[in-house]
Amino acid sequence: MDASHCGVLATTGIVGDQWSLLILRDAMLGVRRFDQYQRHLGVSRTVLADRLGKLVAAGILTREEYQEQGERPRWEYRLTRKGWGLQNVLLALREWGNRYLVSEDERLLELVQASTGEPVELALVRSSDGVRIDPRDLDHRPGPGLRP
Amino acid sequence: MDASHCGVLATTGIVGDQWSLLILRDAMLGVRRFDQYQRHLGVSRTVLADRLGKLVAAGILTREEYQEQGERPRWEYRLTRKGWGLQNVLLALREWGNRYLVSEDERLLELVQASTGEPVELALVRSSDGVRIDPRDLDHRPGPGLRP
Repeated sequence: MDASHCGVLATTGIVGDQWSLLILRDAMLGVRRFDQYQRHLGVSRTVLADRLGKLVAAGILTREEYQEQGERPRWEYRLTRKGWGLQNVLLALREWGNRYLVSEDERLLELVQASTGEPVELALVRSSDGVRIDPRDLDHRPGPGLRP
Repeated sequence: MDASHCGVLATTGIVGDQWSLLILRDAMLGVRRFDQYQRHLGVSRTVLADRLGKLVAAGILTREEYQEQGERPRWEYRLTRKGWGLQNVLLALREWGNRYLVSEDERLLELVQASTGEPVELALVRSSDGVRIDPRDLDHRPGPGLRP
């Protein structure tokens, strides 16, 4: 089975490693700048630059220059529409981790529907059923691990 | 952020590599035996044994002995309930790959609701909404890439 036939093989050929998946997690939580990723992930600058470059080449992130006063220009990275398309992958990884590996009172963030405050989750539905939540209607709230 | 707090970090620490994800894909499609995985994935026996061992240690696969007449005992590997819990991860990887990387007429398999034949997909829903499809009510049918 080659990548031209199998969506799993094709996708994991691009994001099938832990650093890329963690970069995507951070990007979805609002991280933009190289140094923020580096600090947050504790990854070497070489590995980070390599993975960011691959995600840009794959059209998952876009790179834009910014410049703070008195400093040299630097890069920030944002998810494209195609990159946001990977949100379900990250949500599924998180749901499984929360179910089997992270105790409930350690969770830092909970995903809710912004307009109702109700918890949301991934489900398998008929493509013709129109029950999905508008991605713009999502919000994070602090989980038990962030509460005093 | 450490793995005791983050479901994504914890999960990708176990299945965050391409071979593990492809093993899970195959297991969900019914592959059981070491030699089947090896042939199907084209992976070295050493790497395969390493990944299978890690998935067994994590409680994602169970290992059982079987013996063909006149041959030495061998191992087969099946998904546990915990392992089947990763199905949404694989479905999300596939959906994204099918949307962005695999042309429609190359797809080998389509996931449908067995009782209706209707295509199914992942969606983000309110946890309180009861619209999800029973996992026992899923079936694959040949996609365009397998049709004559």
